[in-house]
Amino acid sequence: MTGNIIQLDNNGNLKHFLSTEGLSQSLLQSILDHAESFAGVGERAVKKIPLLRGKTIANLFFEPSTRTRTTFELAAKRLSADILNLNISTSATSKGETLSDTLHTLEAMHCDMFVVRHANSGAAHYIATQVAPHISVINAGDGRHAHPTQAMLDMFTIRRHKKSFENLRVAIVGDILHSRVARSEIHALNTLGVLETRIIAPHTLVPKGVEDLGVQVYNDMDTGLEGIDVIMMLRLQKERMRGALLPSEQEYFQRYGLTSERLAIAKPDAIVMHPGPINRGVEISSEVADGEQSVILQQVSHGIAIRMAVMAMTMGRSNDDMENTE
Amino acid sequence: MTGNIIQLDNNGNLKHFLSTEGLSQSLLQSILDHAESFAGVGERAVKKIPLLRGKTIANLFFEPSTRTRTTFELAAKRLSADILNLNISTSATSKGETLSDTLHTLEAMHCDMFVVRHANSGAAHYIATQVAPHISVINAGDGRHAHPTQAMLDMFTIRRHKKSFENLRVAIVGDILHSRVARSEIHALNTLGVLETRIIAPHTLVPKGVEDLGVQVYNDMDTGLEGIDVIMMLRLQKERMRGALLPSEQEYFQRYGLTSERLAIAKPDAIVMHPGPINRGVEISSEVADGEQSVILQQVSHGIAIRMAVMAMTMGRSNDDMENTE
Amino acid sequence: MTGNIIQLDNNGNLKHFLSTEGLSQSLLQSILDHAESFAGVGERAVKKIPLLRGKTIANLFFEPSTRTRTTFELAAKRLSADILNLNISTSATSKGETLSDTLHTLEAMHCDMFVVRHANSGAAHYIATQVAPHISVINAGDGRHAHPTQAMLDMFTIRRHKKSFENLRVAIVGDILHSRVARSEIHALNTLGVLETRIIAPHTLVPKGVEDLGVQVYNDMDTGLEGIDVIMMLRLQKERMRGALLPSEQEYFQRYGLTSERLAIAKPDAIVMHPGPINRGVEISSEVADGEQSVILQQVSHGIAIRMAVMAMTMGRSNDDMENTE
Repeated sequence: MTGNIIQLDNNGNLKHFLSTEGLSQSLLQSILDHAESFAGVGERAVKKIPLLRGKTIANLFFEPSTRTRTTFELAAKRLSADILNLNISTSATSKGETLSDTLHTLEAMHCDMFVVRHANSGAAHYIATQVAPHISVINAGDGRHAHPTQAMLDMFTIRRHKKSFENLRVAIVGDILHSRVARSEIHALNTLGVLETRIIAPHTLVPKGVEDLGVQVYNDMDTGLEGIDVIMMLRLQKERMRGALLPSEQEYFQRYGLTSERLAIAKPDAIVMHPGPINRGVEISSEVADGEQSVILQQVSHGIAIRMAVMAMTMGRSNDDMENTE
Repeated sequence: MTGNIIQLDNNGNLKHFLSTEGLSQSLLQSILDHAESFAGVGERAVKKIPLLRGKTIANLFFEPSTRTRTTFELAAKRLSADILNLNISTSATSKGETLSDTLHTLEAMHCDMFVVRHANSGAAHYIATQVAPHISVINAGDGRHAHPTQAMLDMFTIRRHKKSFENLRVAIVGDILHSRVARSEIHALNTLGVLETRIIAPHTLVPKGVEDLGVQVYNDMDTGLEGIDVIMMLRLQKERMRGALLPSEQEYFQRYGLTSERLAIAKPDAIVMHPGPINRGVEISSEVADGEQSVILQQVSHGIAIRMAVMAMTMGRSNDDMENTE
Repeated sequence: MTGNIIQLDNNGNLKHFLSTEGLSQSLLQSILDHAESFAGVGERAVKKIPLLRGKTIANLFFEPSTRTRTTFELAAKRLSADILNLNISTSATSKGETLSDTLHTLEAMHCDMFVVRHANSGAAHYIATQVAPHISVINAGDGRHAHPTQAMLDMFTIRRHKKSFENLRVAIVGDILHSRVARSEIHALNTLGVLETRIIAPHTLVPKGVEDLGVQVYNDMDTGLEGIDVIMMLRLQKERMRGALLPSEQEYFQRYGLTSERLAIAKPDAIVMHPGPINRGVEISSEVADGEQSVILQQVSHGIAIRMAVMAMTMGRSNDDMENTE
């Protein structure tokens, strides 16, 4: 995967945002810096800046997701862009139109950006290879491959709490095998230079060869949490329960649920993260989810800032341009 | 129900709008006065004022309703707010997320207001107790409990036609038992000090103990309409027909349908109201619905003004602030 | 059909846009001229002009169509209007409300324009006879009757490539019988004064009496394409295959599919058009659809400009008014 080649333009600026893999540390830090400049917008009386006024952003959701779509929609609206919500599974492609024709049609309508959610790994990357040069593509989750804006809002949350990455030990806990979030987080943590990334999961939910990504694998949670600064819980897809991959919810919670007792094994100032929606009593106890070390709701707020940052950067704009726009 | 305590802030200003019950006459009159200041906006060439620019309003519809959702959406757009339409039944809660987690997630996205429609009585009130202090909640209909913006647009329509409330005799006709509209109207009429409120309905559709609200109960329409200034018809939910509560549609119309002959029993200048959508030939004849005494379409227009008023007031803004906003 | 009477106001200006039939050549040319003035907006950095700011446009889609709805939505947003998307089949009419009551309710909400898509021929025309004087109605496709904005974007595309209409020979190929697009195109081509309009289709897909519209009928494609300047392909509704009207897709392609070999029969500078979405390998080969003579994607872009033009004209505005609006 040569993520850097397609994601950057000739001047090394972000053109598409498809994956955290292959992007340099300085580029990831730049995304975080831009997000920092947008983080205040949501707290103002007028939560709106005219940075992308007159741009048209299409939410292309081939797989439904109210939460992710809503955060992209809000980010676009707060940048004053016009947004089209297209539920593709129910529209033209069902009339036998090819994906490529659907994309070129939207281009001809002078869309500027496609935010893509798709059940197939690699879909956003493929779309980025198909579109006209003026279009930017943002990956809002593709199959098991990547969910880079989720990973970057997590990095933003970590940086806000821990200042720098280099001395951190981070644990990602849960269903790594099916998680595009985990994959994007591992690449981002590697690039940002954390001291150690651990994954904690049952054997059946550890992808083969994951050690090649430079992570330590733990099957036992108590051992895995020792000395940890950041705990990133994953959502357990309940569908997995039906298969042979997992025991019951109760047994899963017993072995991998984050409880106050387990949290005490990590460093005293460890933060607890979760991409949501959370399954209380399955992967995390309510006490921990609502506790002082939880930063789960901050992640949601940061998600808007990160999406504003990535939208602005791929359009070649930054918050510094604001004086000239109104 | 201590509606006044949760609906008002420490200065006695409207913070949430959940019920007409428990609000003072001066507060209800103030809502009507604010609506008066917004009523002209819909008739201007540019139907838009920047009063809530940069605010984010979420339409949380746990129960679908195109008409009510549309009027709130238009009210928000005419105040220049950004609006999110969330059909909650099909989104995160179906992934097992708790209602409370959904609300806190939307808060973290820096929403300013939740407009709530829910099948359960008390839902909007419960949500108002859960949200962060900066959020306002507006009840767009909860179970059989309340539909306060509908009641207030009815009061607005009455005030426009009859100037004051004190000498009025008002009849509410139809399925009182299942009607959140009727409940909200009775409280508003009581507080605004009408001379008499009657309900006219078959025995099976009169709630037990309704006399305690200070209304007169009539089972016969001809007697009930004598001397009436305002006739508020209710929509008959056709689902009720299947049960044992009601005879056939034809028989209902025969006994409780508003015809020209029956209308003649009321005062000559009586006005006819209906919350819509109307069932022609079931609760009202076409002749009356389209006749000179009908103010049904005015109610729709007033609904936008009332919703603009309540949105502005709960956000601490009024139309007088307009000079300072653009 | 007395299209001119209902479509024009007393001063002969466009009030509704329901059909290309019955409108004068100068009026159709005026629509094309207005579209020319809007065509550049989609290519600007800020794709938005405040011409219809504060107007409320309702997309009334009684039949779903993502593509057409999206182009109207984009046209409205680029004119800065507020747009309501109403999927009528799932809303109030399902509660037993009459169409007329639904329309009057939207009028009372101070909508300014209804964009109507309906499965019944004549629906938009009927709606135009029902609405209040301040409302404009635009037909976005009604049954087999008309799809006038599609026809006008096709005329716009022809004029851009061929400058004038008078010396042109145009062929419309495919399922004429079920096509509202073909019907609207034939009227527009006649009025704009092309030299010859041909329809090329199997016997079973030629409407009876179509010769009365002044077109030449060909059942053989090779003969029909001789000397042609403009080829307008129609989409083949795959549903037709199931009936007795058509042989298999392969056989259809063999006899009526536009291939490079067939395209060579037309004039060397002939342009190829298609309203989309295209069925590759059914009515057109990929080579032709993506070839140099294809203007299919330009049609999409022009569709936004035409819809902006028609929206502005029926509201009594033109792009020349722009100096006075901001």
